[in-house]
Amino acid sequence: MSSTYGEKIKISVFGESHGNGIGVVIDGLPSGVKIDMDSVLLQMARRAPGKDKTATPRKESDIPKVLSGMLNDTLTGAPLCAVIENTNTRSGDYSNLLTCPRPGHSDYTAFVKYNGANDIRGGGHFSGRITAPIVFAGSICRQILEKEGIKIAAHISSIGPVKDKLFDPVKIDDTLVAKLNSSSFALIDNSVEGKMREVVESARMNRDSVGGTIECAVTGIKAGIGEPMFDGVEGVIAKAVFGVPAIKAIEFGKGFELSEMLGSQSNDPFEYDGDRVVTKTNNCGGILGGITNGMPVIFRTAVKPTPSISQKQMTVDLQKKENTEIEIHGRHDPCIVPRAVPVIEAVTAIAIVNLM
Amino acid sequence: MSSTYGEKIKISVFGESHGNGIGVVIDGLPSGVKIDMDSVLLQMARRAPGKDKTATPRKESDIPKVLSGMLNDTLTGAPLCAVIENTNTRSGDYSNLLTCPRPGHSDYTAFVKYNGANDIRGGGHFSGRITAPIVFAGSICRQILEKEGIKIAAHISSIGPVKDKLFDPVKIDDTLVAKLNSSSFALIDNSVEGKMREVVESARMNRDSVGGTIECAVTGIKAGIGEPMFDGVEGVIAKAVFGVPAIKAIEFGKGFELSEMLGSQSNDPFEYDGDRVVTKTNNCGGILGGITNGMPVIFRTAVKPTPSISQKQMTVDLQKKENTEIEIHGRHDPCIVPRAVPVIEAVTAIAIVNLM
Amino acid sequence: MSSTYGEKIKISVFGESHGNGIGVVIDGLPSGVKIDMDSVLLQMARRAPGKDKTATPRKESDIPKVLSGMLNDTLTGAPLCAVIENTNTRSGDYSNLLTCPRPGHSDYTAFVKYNGANDIRGGGHFSGRITAPIVFAGSICRQILEKEGIKIAAHISSIGPVKDKLFDPVKIDDTLVAKLNSSSFALIDNSVEGKMREVVESARMNRDSVGGTIECAVTGIKAGIGEPMFDGVEGVIAKAVFGVPAIKAIEFGKGFELSEMLGSQSNDPFEYDGDRVVTKTNNCGGILGGITNGMPVIFRTAVKPTPSISQKQMTVDLQKKENTEIEIHGRHDPCIVPRAVPVIEAVTAIAIVNLM
Amino acid sequence: MSSTYGEKIKISVFGESHGNGIGVVIDGLPSGVKIDMDSVLLQMARRAPGKDKTATPRKESDIPKVLSGMLNDTLTGAPLCAVIENTNTRSGDYSNLLTCPRPGHSDYTAFVKYNGANDIRGGGHFSGRITAPIVFAGSICRQILEKEGIKIAAHISSIGPVKDKLFDPVKIDDTLVAKLNSSSFALIDNSVEGKMREVVESARMNRDSVGGTIECAVTGIKAGIGEPMFDGVEGVIAKAVFGVPAIKAIEFGKGFELSEMLGSQSNDPFEYDGDRVVTKTNNCGGILGGITNGMPVIFRTAVKPTPSISQKQMTVDLQKKENTEIEIHGRHDPCIVPRAVPVIEAVTAIAIVNLM
Repeated sequence: MSSTYGEKIKISVFGESHGNGIGVVIDGLPSGVKIDMDSVLLQMARRAPGKDKTATPRKESDIPKVLSGMLNDTLTGAPLCAVIENTNTRSGDYSNLLTCPRPGHSDYTAFVKYNGANDIRGGGHFSGRITAPIVFAGSICRQILEKEGIKIAAHISSIGPVKDKLFDPVKIDDTLVAKLNSSSFALIDNSVEGKMREVVESARMNRDSVGGTIECAVTGIKAGIGEPMFDGVEGVIAKAVFGVPAIKAIEFGKGFELSEMLGSQSNDPFEYDGDRVVTKTNNCGGILGGITNGMPVIFRTAVKPTPSISQKQMTVDLQKKENTEIEIHGRHDPCIVPRAVPVIEAVTAIAIVNLM
Repeated sequence: MSSTYGEKIKISVFGESHGNGIGVVIDGLPSGVKIDMDSVLLQMARRAPGKDKTATPRKESDIPKVLSGMLNDTLTGAPLCAVIENTNTRSGDYSNLLTCPRPGHSDYTAFVKYNGANDIRGGGHFSGRITAPIVFAGSICRQILEKEGIKIAAHISSIGPVKDKLFDPVKIDDTLVAKLNSSSFALIDNSVEGKMREVVESARMNRDSVGGTIECAVTGIKAGIGEPMFDGVEGVIAKAVFGVPAIKAIEFGKGFELSEMLGSQSNDPFEYDGDRVVTKTNNCGGILGGITNGMPVIFRTAVKPTPSISQKQMTVDLQKKENTEIEIHGRHDPCIVPRAVPVIEAVTAIAIVNLM
Repeated sequence: MSSTYGEKIKISVFGESHGNGIGVVIDGLPSGVKIDMDSVLLQMARRAPGKDKTATPRKESDIPKVLSGMLNDTLTGAPLCAVIENTNTRSGDYSNLLTCPRPGHSDYTAFVKYNGANDIRGGGHFSGRITAPIVFAGSICRQILEKEGIKIAAHISSIGPVKDKLFDPVKIDDTLVAKLNSSSFALIDNSVEGKMREVVESARMNRDSVGGTIECAVTGIKAGIGEPMFDGVEGVIAKAVFGVPAIKAIEFGKGFELSEMLGSQSNDPFEYDGDRVVTKTNNCGGILGGITNGMPVIFRTAVKPTPSISQKQMTVDLQKKENTEIEIHGRHDPCIVPRAVPVIEAVTAIAIVNLM
Repeated sequence: MSSTYGEKIKISVFGESHGNGIGVVIDGLPSGVKIDMDSVLLQMARRAPGKDKTATPRKESDIPKVLSGMLNDTLTGAPLCAVIENTNTRSGDYSNLLTCPRPGHSDYTAFVKYNGANDIRGGGHFSGRITAPIVFAGSICRQILEKEGIKIAAHISSIGPVKDKLFDPVKIDDTLVAKLNSSSFALIDNSVEGKMREVVESARMNRDSVGGTIECAVTGIKAGIGEPMFDGVEGVIAKAVFGVPAIKAIEFGKGFELSEMLGSQSNDPFEYDGDRVVTKTNNCGGILGGITNGMPVIFRTAVKPTPSISQKQMTVDLQKKENTEIEIHGRHDPCIVPRAVPVIEAVTAIAIVNLM
């Protein structure tokens, strides 16, 4: 329970921001699959910080070391463990005393849950840094899915008020998928990049941060995947996606818009495309009764603004038991949405392999 | 996998719309808890159809029979099984041949998944009728939570374009909870009921249907509940909620709105209320880092319009392998939102007991 | 947790000896498999009491009613629930007061665990009667395995000091399997039946009971089934087998004898049988490294004597908090080994389908 | 599935004998528990090879590096990962071609299961070396249990035909527990050590190996722990114990002997010891109905002889598809029983914490 996901392919994530290392164990992988490690490293680079002004300038050398489960770049079938060592950890004893929880962070809730024993340095196990091994695991899962013709692509559907075009829900080209998969600022319509960067830069100048949304699509997935009720595709994906820090909402297909539609508008009519059953529209996001219908699986998710802002904020002093103010120092991403795109793809890949 | 939920208190739901019976097994219940069966039946009555024009006129006598796990209305600690027999099932052999899948339904996806062996009568295991045992299970879980001071209340936050007031996210009175818990058309602001009923009636007259949203709150929950990452409160609730037919979206706190906010707006400042740490606002829906912060847990979910509409719709004939049209006969709910309210409360209760 | 078994095909058993009914929900079954219900009922009849003097004369009409998951005797893929109603339950309020726990029974441990709220009538959920739905579930699983050529057969390998022949570990004929599968006093060498019955009758005359062992074999199972470490075949079968009341030991292949052997004796040499790899001996019981090697999987398990004996026994009075004596009235099986044979086959079938 | 154990405290073991490293992730640990790392290292030293002639002379420097989950020797509540690097691994490409499977090893079964992609060097993931991280995990769990007054001790109950005294099942002193816990050749009656070593030395001289048994006891465990049926104490311990390589049998209490006893002999009479309910005898091994009764939990398990012997053995050549002979070179433990004692204690600790 907690940092573990999956029944068929189990992901067990570990590590704390300022500990000795972070990593993941993946148990249940198929044997004999050749892994393209360059592709894995590319996905991890998309998530890594320090690339441009939207991201924190902190430098991480996130080269994962594979300890087990792989021989000559091929999966052995045994559990795969990959570790990223934290090289810049300062040694010496450390006062683990939480005084003033940062608003919007897990400082306070983790303090209560763990009775103050949790590692609070840099957010500890709740740090966004923990998503590095998730991207590693997702990249492995994605390569397994690609052998089945299944691809996953996500893009920044909005930052603040600036919106990208959305996917054409009934037709998503492999060209678009490839473009998004290799981009570190993934957009369908690249003409909005400038405006998005302005929003982020403006937040940064104001010592503030800004949120956004990410839209993700799974293409090439056959009809009949998923289980009824509690292991429906929506629930399985949602559980994985909410495992990503800062995610607060998810909608499949037309999502919340469906609530204002009539059945005659929302129902997706079936028709034959050759001998294949398709739907004319894809308001349901490729999922009916929790099971895929063969159309792209599409969902959109909301990323809250990075809680770390350097403006003065109100909080409490837990030692003195009084109200106080806090200013968070250090440099933080004014917008994590671009870096969260490969993370959303990764957890989606992890979710989908568990449905196969 | 599939119709089973939970690690601590396991819910295993069974049954098909036109089979011999539907029901649920609940394993892992605490022993010695006295159950108020009248309250359970009240919750089931809120879900039952036939109460008014928003709902199908079909009559169900959904009296659950408890086969095990309860003695003198007290939980024994052994698995509790409750069965609702389907009394009006016609006997005789039955041709289980799916020809034309209904748009928006699971007919097609279940047909593919089960190779045509699934029971298609009335939607089979995918029928909304399956939510009756879920409400039963949720009512038991809710009574366990109430002993800990935790209450759950949901309301119709919108039907089509008509909106109810939303919860005050920092303060939800027990009086309001009690009012909602006993209502079959649960609203915070009852003055919108008329307009909502008009929208539904209008859809019904047009042989159409309409969707809506449900907002749900958990009050009295202590800080420190939930796990980091994949067993965070959002993910655990989402997995349960997406187990309910027709749910396509969920957002916690301000949800999608957060994506257009700045960090300085979205962060909820901490402050002392006496010796208790609270937040001034509750944009995070009572959850930080996947863990409760002691404020009400609040989420909103979207219900798609009932796919069963009696208008002519385009579909395919799977036997003749050609495009065709379908007209669905029989009476169906033009809007399932009111009846879905106690179902959302029920799965939330099931999710929360599994987090305790 | 508790009365649930399995990850792929989940068995959830419910019911108490004197409650309204007992039964099982089986989730994860494949769709489209035609079930031979006569064969299911035959297996249940093998377990049912009242057939001869080794068994209790109490009459049970253990006809399971299938509520869901089956249509025209074919699995639909939805959860299958089967219920056996307890017809002779007396109504009326019941004093659930445990005074003197019966030695060797779960009376005391269940009392402590459930704080006295458990149903103590007839052993409640701990009653051997609960094995009836297990045999039902096992019979379904067994029919699924038979489609893959896998068969399961068990026999009474001993009652008290009287021993049956053991399986030839490298060659088990289908004829023998069929004979054992249809027998209610399953023996390889039927000439020992008389002596075994004498031992049982002697115990019965002395108001005593007697234990025994059951040997079980799985034939036709391919090499490569099972997982390393904690989901090895031994562990998975052991967990299922220890779910059966009164089982206190299990050994695979030569089991405890291996501890007195040398490696040169215990290692099973490989050789080709045509183009198939086999082993000359089968001391490992068909399992190496937790994974099947293609030889029959063989294990032996110990059944303790029925704790219900009508001799006077020492116990405590939990109300008066003093030592006392107890005499158990009613008729009980002086030996449950013959009836336990189909139960062991059933849990083995349930374990094996979860490994496939 | 596979190298993962536990629902409450999840153990995920990884690594291959000649890979980059082996280790374990432990998820679900309580926060705030101070760990005595010297004690952990002592337990690991008991398992480590090279101490005397019963064990392989290969030198391992099994110093675990804790990457996460611990701060200032105190559990943080986040997943704990410990890694043991394999320092003497030769680099360079490696031909992973299995030609002749060693009898009694997992070579053949793993080859079939993983289609030849598994790492076969030194047994890969099936190597006994994998028990080092298990002992690490078990040592952490054991320290958690000790805070509840629960202790675990095992001893070599036999090697070949030479037997140690067994535990007094109703009374096991803390002094004995402490002595066994610190011994690398753990015996109750140390006078048998000479004879045992003779048996091992004789096997070694004959290029053979020898098996044995280990008896394990859990003291200080309260009544009421465990679940009925499939999560009974026997099943939960058995699943953990069969996760240890070379284990082929387990029996609780009198185990197989019970099968030859009468109920009047095997039933353990209850009596008061002060105001505590105890049993006069402990034939049931402290478990009734799958639940502890407050007496020591006792079981015995069989370890098969090390399959690696340097005598010529018959096997098959999987490439040439013909029968052949094999001689295994290198030095191997002629008897792994002494080193398996702390491993059995470790998996028992892991099993018990999952029952609490």
